This record gives sequence, C-alpha cells and structure tokens, in this order.
Amino acid sequence: MNMTSASKKTVYGDYLQLGKLLECQEPYSGSEQKPAHDEMLFIIVHQVYELWFKQIIHDLDSVLDLMAPNPMSEKGLCTVVARLNRIKEIIKLLIAKLDVLETMKPMDFLDFRHFLGTMSGFQSHQFRLLEIKLGLSSCDRVTPSKCPYAKDFTSIQQEKLNATETATSLFSKVQEWLERTPFLENGSFSFKLVYKEAVDSMLKHEKKRIESLTGLTEKEKKMQDLRLNDLSENYGKLANPEIYDQLLREGKRCLSYKSTLAAVFIESYSNEPILHMPHQFLHAALEVDRLLSLWRFRHALMVQKMIGTKGGTGGSLGYAYLIKTVEEYQIFSDFHDLSTLLIPRFLLPDLGSDVKRDLGFFYKTT
Amino acid sequence: MNMTSASKKTVYGDYLQLGKLLECQEPYSGSEQKPAHDEMLFIIVHQVYELWFKQIIHDLDSVLDLMAPNPMSEKGLCTVVARLNRIKEIIKLLIAKLDVLETMKPMDFLDFRHFLGTMSGFQSHQFRLLEIKLGLSSCDRVTPSKCPYAKDFTSIQQEKLNATETATSLFSKVQEWLERTPFLENGSFSFKLVYKEAVDSMLKHEKKRIESLTGLTEKEKKMQDLRLNDLSENYGKLANPEIYDQLLREGKRCLSYKSTLAAVFIESYSNEPILHMPHQFLHAALEVDRLLSLWRFRHALMVQKMIGTKGGTGGSLGYAYLIKTVEEYQIFSDFHDLSTLLIPRFLLPDLGSDVKRDLGFFYKTT
Amino acid sequence: MNMTSASKKTVYGDYLQLGKLLECQEPYSGSEQKPAHDEMLFIIVHQVYELWFKQIIHDLDSVLDLMAPNPMSEKGLCTVVARLNRIKEIIKLLIAKLDVLETMKPMDFLDFRHFLGTMSGFQSHQFRLLEIKLGLSSCDRVTPSKCPYAKDFTSIQQEKLNATETATSLFSKVQEWLERTPFLENGSFSFKLVYKEAVDSMLKHEKKRIESLTGLTEKEKKMQDLRLNDLSENYGKLANPEIYDQLLREGKRCLSYKSTLAAVFIESYSNEPILHMPHQFLHAALEVDRLLSLWRFRHALMVQKMIGTKGGTGGSLGYAYLIKTVEEYQIFSDFHDLSTLLIPRFLLPDLGSDVKRDLGFFYKTT
Amino acid sequence: MNMTSASKKTVYGDYLQLGKLLECQEPYSGSEQKPAHDEMLFIIVHQVYELWFKQIIHDLDSVLDLMAPNPMSEKGLCTVVARLNRIKEIIKLLIAKLDVLETMKPMDFLDFRHFLGTMSGFQSHQFRLLEIKLGLSSCDRVTPSKCPYAKDFTSIQQEKLNATETATSLFSKVQEWLERTPFLENGSFSFKLVYKEAVDSMLKHEKKRIESLTGLTEKEKKMQDLRLNDLSENYGKLANPEIYDQLLREGKRCLSYKSTLAAVFIESYSNEPILHMPHQFLHAALEVDRLLSLWRFRHALMVQKMIGTKGGTGGSLGYAYLIKTVEEYQIFSDFHDLSTLLIPRFLLPDLGSDVKRDLGFFYKTT
Repeated sequence: MNMTSASKKTVYGDYLQLGKLLECQEPYSGSEQKPAHDEMLFIIVHQVYELWFKQIIHDLDSVLDLMAPNPMSEKGLCTVVARLNRIKEIIKLLIAKLDVLETMKPMDFLDFRHFLGTMSGFQSHQFRLLEIKLGLSSCDRVTPSKCPYAKDFTSIQQEKLNATETATSLFSKVQEWLERTPFLENGSFSFKLVYKEAVDSMLKHEKKRIESLTGLTEKEKKMQDLRLNDLSENYGKLANPEIYDQLLREGKRCLSYKSTLAAVFIESYSNEPILHMPHQFLHAALEVDRLLSLWRFRHALMVQKMIGTKGGTGGSLGYAYLIKTVEEYQIFSDFHDLSTLLIPRFLLPDLGSDVKRDLGFFYKTT
Repeated sequence: MNMTSASKKTVYGDYLQLGKLLECQEPYSGSEQKPAHDEMLFIIVHQVYELWFKQIIHDLDSVLDLMAPNPMSEKGLCTVVARLNRIKEIIKLLIAKLDVLETMKPMDFLDFRHFLGTMSGFQSHQFRLLEIKLGLSSCDRVTPSKCPYAKDFTSIQQEKLNATETATSLFSKVQEWLERTPFLENGSFSFKLVYKEAVDSMLKHEKKRIESLTGLTEKEKKMQDLRLNDLSENYGKLANPEIYDQLLREGKRCLSYKSTLAAVFIESYSNEPILHMPHQFLHAALEVDRLLSLWRFRHALMVQKMIGTKGGTGGSLGYAYLIKTVEEYQIFSDFHDLSTLLIPRFLLPDLGSDVKRDLGFFYKTT
Repeated sequence: MNMTSASKKTVYGDYLQLGKLLECQEPYSGSEQKPAHDEMLFIIVHQVYELWFKQIIHDLDSVLDLMAPNPMSEKGLCTVVARLNRIKEIIKLLIAKLDVLETMKPMDFLDFRHFLGTMSGFQSHQFRLLEIKLGLSSCDRVTPSKCPYAKDFTSIQQEKLNATETATSLFSKVQEWLERTPFLENGSFSFKLVYKEAVDSMLKHEKKRIESLTGLTEKEKKMQDLRLNDLSENYGKLANPEIYDQLLREGKRCLSYKSTLAAVFIESYSNEPILHMPHQFLHAALEVDRLLSLWRFRHALMVQKMIGTKGGTGGSLGYAYLIKTVEEYQIFSDFHDLSTLLIPRFLLPDLGSDVKRDLGFFYKTT
Repeated sequence: MNMTSASKKTVYGDYLQLGKLLECQEPYSGSEQKPAHDEMLFIIVHQVYELWFKQIIHDLDSVLDLMAPNPMSEKGLCTVVARLNRIKEIIKLLIAKLDVLETMKPMDFLDFRHFLGTMSGFQSHQFRLLEIKLGLSSCDRVTPSKCPYAKDFTSIQQEKLNATETATSLFSKVQEWLERTPFLENGSFSFKLVYKEAVDSMLKHEKKRIESLTGLTEKEKKMQDLRLNDLSENYGKLANPEIYDQLLREGKRCLSYKSTLAAVFIESYSNEPILHMPHQFLHAALEVDRLLSLWRFRHALMVQKMIGTKGGTGGSLGYAYLIKTVEEYQIFSDFHDLSTLLIPRFLLPDLGSDVKRDLGFFYKTT
C-alpha cells in the first residue's frame, strides 16, 4: 500500500522464503539413479495439498474462534460465511488439481512407486486435524483407520490430534448456534406449532384427495395409501419431538431436535432479510461438507486408476476404504437431505408483522 | 510398488519435507501486531504458484532435452506432447486459483498491503525463466520491464537468466523441428506447389463466381472485388515465399517461411496417422501459449480489482502493463491465426499413395 | 412434490417439448451431400448459448423488476443478489463451453464454413438485448457495430431493441440505488467528511514521512515527491466533488459522484451487518460484468483460432473487433478499479454507535 | 468460408431455428398462476442436457461406424480418439452445469415441484440410448429400473431401445478391437510369455528378499508371506489364462482374456509410437466411463440436496438408486483398476528391434 512504506526493502523471494521452499523437493528415485521424471510432479502435487490444508485450517480456526462468543455477533457471522466460502473455493481447487496429477500415467507411477515404501496420504497430519476440526471424531472413522494414530504420527502430533478431538468442532458449533436461534418461539409465534399445523393440514388435504379419486383399482388404491403413510411418517419425524428423539437414540439422526427444527425454520424463511445470513452460513457449512465428499470420491477414482483396487502395501487403505469414506465421513449427514422435511411456501404462514418487527430489533441491539 | 520394499521405513511427512515446507509462511503484518488474517492466503497462493512454476520448468526442460536430437525420435515426440499437455493442465489450475485469491476483498488486502512495500510478482525469478524458456526474449518485453533484471534479481539469478536467454527456447525448437518436416517435398510431391495451385484455383473460381453475378450495384461490385483482393493478398503471403520473407523482414511475421508452410501442411493433413502426433505437438505448444495469455488476462483482471489501475509503488507495473502483455507476450503469435492460411480439404489433393507409403517407411527406420 | 399430484400424467419428454427441440438441428452442409460431421456440434453449441441467454434475460428482467420500487425492500435485495449470482454461474458455464467447441479443429470448421455464408453471432438478438439490459447503449458500441440493427434484425426485433434501450438498465438501476444509500449522511455522521479527513491525514502523514527521510539522492527525492503527488491526485478525485464532476464531464468517469461515494462507503464498512447485502449486491453486479469480459476475451481467442484475424466475410467483425470489446463493453468500468479510492480500515473511523443504532431502524420499518 | 458464398442470404436465427427453439419453454406452474420464477431454469437446464445428449449420440454413432471395419484403419482411430475426447469435454460440462442448477434452493424447487407430477429424468430416451450404446445392457441395470421401458417410453421409442440393445456397443467394439491387436504374438515375440516370465521373476525375487530378512517377529513374517501370496494371486489372474477364464465364468471379470492381455500390452509399451494412438484410444474410452461415473455421483448429490433421500413419487428412483448406479453402471469396470496387473518397466523386456520393425510395416500397408 502506498500509505506507509515498509522501512526495509522488501523482496518477493525473501517474503515467500523461496530459497527454502524450493529446496524441499527431493525425489527418492534419485537416490540411486536418474530420478523418475514424474516423481517431481508427485511431490509437488502433495506439497501443494499440504499448503492448502494449512490455509483451510487457518480459516477454520478463525471460524471456530468467531463462533465462540454466545451469542455470536452478526458481524462475526458475515466473516464466518466469507471464510467458509473460501474453504469451498479451495476444495474446488483440490478437486481440479487431480486433473494435473492424472497427467501421470500408471506406468509412469510404477517407475518410482517402489521407492515410496509404506508411505500413505493417510499419514497427513494436517488432513487428520482438518477432519477432526470439522467434526469427524476418531470413533466415527471407518475400520481399519479407527485408531491408527499411534502408529502413523509422532507423539507431539498425536497429542495435538487428541487435544483437537476434545476441543469444539464445526459440527458442534453449528448445532449450538442453531439451538440458540432466537426466532423459533417469539411472542405468540411458535415455529414448532406452525410446522405441526402445516403438516397436519397437508396430510388431511392429501387424504381427502385420495378419497375423492374414483375408478382406482385395488392395487392403485393401496399405492396411494402407502404414499400417504410415507408422507405421514417422514414429516412426523420433525412434527413429533418424541419420535425424533427416538431416532436420535437409535443413531439414525445426529443433530438435536431443536437444531434440526431451527435449520428447517431458517430454510423456510430464508428470504427474510434477518435470516439471510443464517441461511448463507448453513449453506456454506453444508457445501464445505459436500465438496469434501466430492473430493473424496474424485480422489478415490484417481487412486483406483493409479494403484488399482488392490490397495496399498498395508493391504487396507486403498480404493475400497476410500470409496467407503465418501458417504460415511460426511459431517452434516442429517442436513444433506433436509429438503425431505421442508414444506412448500404456500403451506406455510407468513411470518406475522410482530415477528418481523421483533426480528428488526435484533439488529438494533447489536 | 509392492515388488521391492524400500529398505528404510518411509514417512509421508519426511518425504514431503513438511517440517520445513510448513514453516515458510511468516506474515509480515505479524511483526508488530496480530497478523492480518488474509495475509496467510496471500502467501500461500504465491508459494503454490512458485511450486507450480518449478514443475512447469521441470517439464519444459525435459521437453527441450527431448527435442535436442536431430531428428527427434517419434518416441520422444509422444513424451513431449504428454508433458506439454501437463503444462496446459497446470496453467488451467493457475487460472482457477485466482478464484481462491479473489475470496480476499480489496479492503482485506489493504489491511496488510503496506507491509509489502515495493515487492512485486515481477520479481519472480522462476516465472521469468519460464517466459524465456518458452521463447520470450528480454528485447520482446514491454517497457518498463525491458531490462529490469539487474535491479530485481541477485547476480546469481541474473546470470541464470542470461544463460537461459542464450540457450534454445521452445520457440526456436518448434521452428527448427518444423523446418525439418520430411514430407513437404517427397518424390514428385511438393506441398509448396500443391498449396500454390489450390490457392490459384480457389481465386480463379471465386473470380468467375463474381463475374457471373448479375444485378449488382456498383457498390456491391466493388465490395466483391475488395473481397477477392483480400483473399488473394492473404493467401498470397504463403503462396509466394518472397512476399513472406518481406513480411518477415518487416517484423510482421516471426517464424520462417519453411516452418509456416510445414505447419500448414501438418494441419491440412492432420488426419493422416503419420501426422497425428506432429499435429498434437503443434496444438499442445499453441495451447500452452494461449492458456498463458488467458492466465495473463485473468491475472490482470484480478490486479485491477485488488490494486486498481494506479499500479504498484513503482507506478508502472500495474494493470496497464499487465493487460498489454496479454497479447504482446504470445510466443507463437504467427500461428494463433494459422487458420487464415488454411485451405478447405475439398480443395486440397489427397496425399498420393506414394507419399503415404513413403511416410510409412519413416516409422520403420526408427 | 408429493403434496398435490398433478391431475394428468406428466411425461418428461412432453414437458421439455423434446419432439420439437430435437428437431431444430439441421446442418446446412447436409443440403447437397453427407453433412460435415462437426456442423452438428456447431449448431448445438450455439443453440445452447441461446437457451442460456434466454435464462440470463429471464433472471435479469426479474432483477430489474425487483429494483423498480423506491426504496427497494431488503427482501428484494436478497433475491436480486441470488439471481445475479446465478447469472455469474451461467457465464462461467458459457466460458467452459468453449472447451467443447474447440474440440473442433479449424480444418473441420472449413468443411462446412462456406455453407454459413455471411451469418454471424453478431446477429444474436438475445445477446444484443442482454447487453442493452446490462447497460450497454448503442452509442457505446465500437464501430462497425454502432447502429447495425436495421440490417441484421427484423423490424419486430429492431423495435424490441429500441424499446429496451429506452427502458432502465442494470447500470442505471445500480446508480440510482447507490445514490439512495441512506447512511452516507446520518445525524452528525457524514461519510463525505470522514473520507476527506482520512485522505488529508494520510497525505499529511506521508508528507512528514518523506521529509524525515535522510540521505536521499536528488532523484530519489523527486520520486518520493512524485508519489505523494500521485496519491494526492488519485484520492483527490473523490475527496473533491468538483474535481469528480469535471472528470464526469470529460467522460473519464461514468457514474455520478454520489453513487461512487456510496460504493466506497459500502466497501469500506462491508463487515457491518447492515451493509453486507449491499456489498454482496455490488460485488455480484461487478462480477457479472467481469465474467462477461472474460467470456469476451476467451471467445475472441477461440475466433482467432477458428477463423484467424482476417475476420468474417464482412471483413469487420472478427478478432480485432472482438478483442476491442473486451474492455470497452464493460458496464461498470468506473468500479473495476474502485480499490484505488479505498482507504485502509486503520485510517477510517469506526461507525459510531449512533449510526449503528440508526442503521438498525432501517430494518424495523421495512 | 470466403471461397464459395452461399447462394441465399443466411441468417443466424434461421440457421439455429431460434423461433422454434425458444418457444419450447413453457413452465407448468404458469398454467394457473404467475409461473414460479425458477421453473424456467429447471426447464432450460434439462433442455440443454438433451441437446448435449444428442451431440454425444452423434459422436458415439460415428465412433461405432468408424470401428465397424475389420481392421479399423489408423486414420479412423485418430478420428475415434478425437470424438471420444469431445464426449469427455461434454461430460465435464454436464458436471459443471450442476453448479448452475444448484443456484435454485430446495424451497424454490418446492414452489413448482408439485406441478411436475410423476415425471422423472429417468424418462430421458436419449440418455437411455446413450447408456446402451456405451454398453450398459438392460440386464445390467439396477432394480427398480431393470425393465421399465414399456412404462416410460412410447412404443416407437421402445423399439429403438430394443434395436440399440441388439446392435454393437462401444464395450463390445473395444473388446473386439483389443482382441485383434496384431502385436501380441509377433514372430518369436509372445507377450503372454513375456508377461508370465516377468511375473515369475518378480515373485522369485520377492521371495528371496523376504527370506533374507532377519530379526522378524513371527507376526511380521506372516505378514510378509501374506503379501507374497496376494502378489502371486493378483498377477496370477493374467499370467494363467485358465484362472482368468474361471473368473470370467464367475462374473468377476467382464472382458475376455485376450482383450485384457492386449490392454496390459498397450499400456506397458504405450511410449512406442505405434502404440501411442491405441493407448490414447483406450484412455479416452476409460475416461468417458469415469467421467460419467463422476457425473452420476455429482448428480446424486444434487438430487439428495433438492429432493432428499425420500425419492420420487414412485418412491424408488431417488438418491439411493442413483448412488448405487455410480459404480454399477461403469462399462469398463475391468479396466479401471488395470494398474493392478501392470508390471514396472524395469521388469519388462525392451520390445526387440524385430518387433519394432514389423510394427513399422503396419503403417506401410494401411
């Protein structure tokens, strides 16, 4: 910036520590012979991954910090959204990067693969940290990677992983934040009630429609009844807290009733100015999760192509494991099909002017 | 690889030298205060650039090596094409990366810009090397960057730049290779002649067509004559070597007559198996050049957004300079509009079976 | 949706009118002979363009409608941002689409190009409408396309273009909306004053810094003075309305003083919740403009490759014209380097609590 | 093209049949009320899909035609590769397009979803054709879509599907072409033998290495033996035709022994000029398949977000079905992990000069 000049002359290469940075690429295949040409690509691709992981962690940490106060300020929310959106863009880049790695043919990889020994991307400490910070706890991990820390990491690294596991994750922060949504019950307005009424009315209307149908075969009639039943069961999950809690106990849901209700509320009225940033926040958190799934899938395809389905030397961490994690490591699995709980706008009441006015006050007191 | 285990236990983090690599990010804004959050992104984005530049140089160097023998083997050509295509993919990634950088708002940049002083991406030694290796000599550079080496680089860096300038570039290698194309004159076949005849026949046919038009106004007739003239002038460039050489002397063309003729030959008959790899090679070299232009343009847009049109502290290296380089730093400018010299297939003679058989021998003797 | 079943059976193909849609591809090269294989691609690529243009116009029209009320509601603003962001995504796709078109080689294009006659993408009525709706008036157009409507369009199409020119464009809507920004002057707070004071203080501080420098050569001293002068001139543009208005009269600025000041205000305090959506809106409008420039550039590169620099049969609408439009057809050229007018946060006063409270009321009365 | 002017004046809009094309968008939600704004997007997104499907089929048909002659000419192979690469680029675009569709929020979709009734993308006739032409036969389909043709398509459409099923698919063409590879047995050279010898030598060497290890615990020793066993079993599949054929009978492999051996040969020696196009062909076919998987996955994520996991009205064709097809509908599943059968170059013999000379003759006789 032109305002204040730095006192010492600044040089691009010093600032970026290029001397050091560009020294870190030493192909193992070069130890005995002319290095395999493509090992450089292999190293640089993975180093670039690690640099981006550092950036993601940098942004994620700041997100967790900004979400620490209760209540989080609206100003903080804006910044949180911006940083989650940055993480999204970075993950998109990580996905695109696989196109570069795949310019290496499997035969080219075989030229140096035996120098890599038992090494595995699974040993990336930063990626593990990142997963934990998002909310993937070690007990959620798919076998064989349930507790492989001790083996793959140094004791300092292991301690850091443990400490991160006990700290708050994005998952729990999102849940807490949703549970604190101040508009769910507002004077005479109760979204819980509003939702239940909309569901009941929807089901009643649907039942009447079915009864009015004429000329149905027995089979068709059964189908219609089945559909009505499905509908009732699906929306019943959220309309009845006790059913929801049962699902929670059975491990079929991960997030609390209150936070799920709040998410449905935010999505239902996301066009209200006051709910716009909350909607963007929720959307950004889900997109980070979805893009990570997409990266996991794309990465698994690459591994299948390069190494095949036989897996690494350990015999375990190959394609079969990776493809399993695509769905199982989603943090917000409850919310990826949130739309099954949504009710169309024409069946929802307008937020009354009282609610809207009160929502307005929220800003005033910030 | 499962065949031979490495003798020592290999670890991901050691291999990638992560200890060192992840230590290289030290925000200047942190020297006096809490660092500006977004400076980390700024550093990492540029470090990732430099890692990719290293990879591009690695591939480009091998391309130049593979092209050194005269004649280059067909086997070498395949590898050259693969590596140029890799460079293409990397540049696509560099373009995509700007989406990540632009998650930083101009106001966020101002939070730490003054710490950067007179630093400039212009000081990237690797990028300069890369430009020279492609074929951009220092005398082609747009002012104010004509000879700024002495100022921005260390004497070792400067020496390396000088040495690179005197070494062979991709540009000159491509020209040489084209000039050696063995099929242009082959027994009774002469592409130069074939081309000239096709042009003459095309012009004669067009002239007849114009003369046969009836009911044209004076103005319309003039237009038609102008078009015929244009056509004649355009194709005449290549049909007449002396005209071409005149253009070369005037600096309106960069590549020799013979290499241009060869390029038109390759494109014209690129469906012939023997010309398929040459076509892919030419295409890959041009695409690297075009994608670099695209990156320069995209990068200039980003600079305009972040810094505006006022330019850096030097007052000179900002948007105005960058946008100028988009077109002026194209290496193969002669070939980007090669299609103006192409003649439709239906006006070209089939390559005779003699030529085709002889072309076949080429492989045999490899 | 499961709630109300459509009364009649709905079928995918009927809904999308596929019978009709998939009948619209008739290669001209097929009139006399076996059609050139790649003409199908050429047709489909351009039809897909037109479908997306229809969608962009659909969204743009709704944006203009939503911006019609004075003041626009905050709820409307959210929707406007969402739709501009959709237009952004569509333009990204239009850019990506060129990769598909470029799988056609110039020689393949020559197989059917002569069947296309004088046809030109310039005759796209929807694209012209779109440009006008964004704010590109016919008098801004680069020759030779200043007033070519009469020639290229039917009279009904021409009328629609004329009507659109007289209607309100996004450009003028954005200007109006900025001029109405209610926070620039708020009780004792005046951003105009705040800005001027920050500029003065910055210049004073810089002057002192320069005077305190010792051991400068005469030349270095001159350089420093020049820089100070530049700084003063640059920020003076906005600090002094009369200078700004002079620039406006000279055609060096396009947008009014008040709207530019408002834009700088919004960017400066974009982290304030109340200014977050305005910031997103401004950003989205600028991004649409920038992405369109990027498309124009990428499109020009494609034309250069396919047709060369000779241009179309008209001799005028080729690469040279297209590359000119990249910068000249930017709608918000004033704002693309807005950052030159921005002042770092540490030189700006915090918005007082009075202002913040009053900003809060804004929502309340919506 | 400037050579021959079309006799009649050609107009862009007529050529593209825009009058008709731009009439095909009629939102169902508009039948009773103001149409839901986002239904236009929904329609256009799907129409654009269908246009691209038409193009893919156009290219795929030409690929199948070019592969009909036995042997296919080398010239034909070049064109086949180019067209498969185009299909790749189109599928990349189809994936990117989902970003545009997802600018529609689930709540926006609910505004018109009930008008769509039982309609499903599953009713896309062109997509079904495309799947069959690639090689997905109706008996490979996942329930519930095994034989749903009769219900979803007209009888003419159904007939076309049936006819396509009986015609040759890309899958069988690739298999046939591989089986005809003329270099597997060439004079004294037998790749089958070469492969078996390399595998035996690799296993012997590995066995010796294990035996020479000292200080291993019983458990570590067992692990090493297991690894050797795995290795032996994996490579044994291809080294022993009878084992391979057994796997084929058990449905664990899809492609014949000979074609798999040929694929391994091509990949192993892909740097030989004569094998370069065959390698590109194989690679392009696999990439089309992989990209389609990626599209299926990305599409399933979108459906999960928009509709949730409950599925369509039929209750069956939702996310659960779609996610299943990602892996199960891969055509070349045998080849996606081909790398498990590859042997590093340093264990493979150089192709003798005899083989190389003979390979040269191949071209000559074309």
